[in-house]
Amino acid sequence: ERKLMLFTGRAHPELAKEVASELGATLVPTKAFDFANGEIYVRFEESVRGSDAFVIQSHTAPINTWIMEQLIMVDALKRASAKRITVIIPFYGYARQDKKHRGREPISARLMADLFKTAGADRLMCVDLHTSQIQGFFDGPVDHLFALPLLADHVGNRVDRERLTVVSPDAGRVRVADQWTDRLGAPLAIIHKRRDPNVANEVSVHEVVGEVEGRTCVLVDDMIDTGGTICAAAEALFANGAADVIVAATHAVLSGPAVDRLKNSRISEVIVTNSLPIPNDRRFDKLTELSIAPMVARAITEVFEDGSVTSLFEGHS
Amino acid sequence: ERKLMLFTGRAHPELAKEVASELGATLVPTKAFDFANGEIYVRFEESVRGSDAFVIQSHTAPINTWIMEQLIMVDALKRASAKRITVIIPFYGYARQDKKHRGREPISARLMADLFKTAGADRLMCVDLHTSQIQGFFDGPVDHLFALPLLADHVGNRVDRERLTVVSPDAGRVRVADQWTDRLGAPLAIIHKRRDPNVANEVSVHEVVGEVEGRTCVLVDDMIDTGGTICAAAEALFANGAADVIVAATHAVLSGPAVDRLKNSRISEVIVTNSLPIPNDRRFDKLTELSIAPMVARAITEVFEDGSVTSLFEGHS
Ligand SMILES: Nc1ncnc2c1ncn2[C@@H]1O[C@H](COP(=O)(O)O)[C@@H](O)[C@H]1O
Ligand SMILES: Nc1ncnc2c1ncn2[C@@H]1O[C@H](COP(=O)(O)O)[C@@H](O)[C@H]1O
Repeated sequence: ERKLMLFTGRAHPELAKEVASELGATLVPTKAFDFANGEIYVRFEESVRGSDAFVIQSHTAPINTWIMEQLIMVDALKRASAKRITVIIPFYGYARQDKKHRGREPISARLMADLFKTAGADRLMCVDLHTSQIQGFFDGPVDHLFALPLLADHVGNRVDRERLTVVSPDAGRVRVADQWTDRLGAPLAIIHKRRDPNVANEVSVHEVVGEVEGRTCVLVDDMIDTGGTICAAAEALFANGAADVIVAATHAVLSGPAVDRLKNSRISEVIVTNSLPIPNDRRFDKLTELSIAPMVARAITEVFEDGSVTSLFEGHS
Repeated sequence: ERKLMLFTGRAHPELAKEVASELGATLVPTKAFDFANGEIYVRFEESVRGSDAFVIQSHTAPINTWIMEQLIMVDALKRASAKRITVIIPFYGYARQDKKHRGREPISARLMADLFKTAGADRLMCVDLHTSQIQGFFDGPVDHLFALPLLADHVGNRVDRERLTVVSPDAGRVRVADQWTDRLGAPLAIIHKRRDPNVANEVSVHEVVGEVEGRTCVLVDDMIDTGGTICAAAEALFANGAADVIVAATHAVLSGPAVDRLKNSRISEVIVTNSLPIPNDRRFDKLTELSIAPMVARAITEVFEDGSVTSLFEGHS
């Protein structure tokens, strides 16, 4: 008789609670605090022996602290004889360092996968990884969930599809936009960043490839971090005659100037998920937050029942 | 032709610089910064191929950030073909969580050893580990250095040895004090914390075992964290007629109330090392800081020359 047990770190307990309530389960009571020198203490308040354990932690700021906490939780679960440990990372930290962009750089995304494996993770569950290659970094099964249906259906219901154009803010990330066009049957445009030949190493020309005049443009990306790329892309769209620009991205990292930039931009709606916590002082009127909890709960159920998670992929890999 | 290369993270560059200057070497220029969302970027500014690499980082606050930075540095060194990677951790984080004190706790000290191994560490160098067992956690050679000669010689030169008594603040840690008595030829006393039978789980009686009346007592420990243990022990010594109390500890963690407690206590001198950085606002008049840099530099030389580090142990294991 296997027992599903759900755990959360301190990074984003609201999401974990929502997932638990979708499952009709409760979170396992866990004591977690920082000692005076910042070392983390963790202890589970009930037996976890033989359990099918799922440990949720979003890699939000302070990101290294929350990654370490999740590693320590996995270590404690392993030593307390959990039968299988699935690490759920809605937003996977260090995903952008997934290759050596230059010599003598780390590949931190791979390092993270190895650290979780070393701590005792049997399985990884993530939402919209920055690149699919990261699945190959983990030595074990990876459930890669996609927020596309959630985000795209919201956009599809809200906007006149006849007027909609899907826009990739970066030529290097057209794949995501491509999946949107498939789902919504909308045409595609791409922002092409060209280096100004007069200014070395400076991206200064944002060229729009595709027809956006008079269109409702939805800029799609996996994350909004400082908002620089997205806001520059939106400006380029308006400069090319776009009627309206909305933004849809899975991960609301919203670092530093992001909120001010988005608020002050002419973007009319910013649609994100709750893969990361959004503190109240980072919320703003035109922000829409959709919940990934039902999707994560379904994936947990499938893993627990040894079903296939592939059905959640909806054909996208 | 092997090449010794010395690297430092951002936690305590002063110590690394001192070690470098002891070696007549320079630190390898390293770019390290935090991205907007707190993820760490690291890159070495010159080739490390084939090097005998030594990476210094003290696990000080924000401790999880600095541990992660050191892991990422090791990952980058490994991928850039360093020949051997020695991780130098003057103060080893999570050392106090070296066993399951209760069920369903992690063994974080072991986890850290495994994380460094996974990142690519071939060898570990530490100073005064909280317990010697931690050496057994790392799957590879460990150089365990002792600050005892440094601290004890300072005390021996400063104090009339005839009047000196070495005191262990905790019956569980008499081993450290025992090494002091060997070195200084001084008698031993022990603070025995007894639980008050009237108050469950509360340590309230500090019994002094040994003769301290009219003596100059040196309280010895591996670290001063919040200072609670040390200051309570000093009070117990004065209550038992001690003439003077000084404190000697390798690691100046100095968390939270530590500085206020030590300042306001009747302790006349607090002797520590620079295994951890001491910010200016945590320094106080009666604090003496001794440098471990010469010792670390000697150990690096011995490792590099494939000599034995054991000579630095001075018979203590
Ligand atoms: N947390 C981060 N924030 C911003 N840039 C990052 C971060 N992590 C890595 N990068 C850099 O982003 C670039 C890759 O981004 P991308 O092309 O979107 O995959 C590389 O130059 C990375 O060094
Ligand atoms: N960073 C820390 N600060 C204070 N106590 C700790 C820390 N890490 C672990 N502990 C606890 O300290 C106790 C062991 O201390 P000791 O007996 O000195 O080895 C255990 O109860 C640990 O859970």
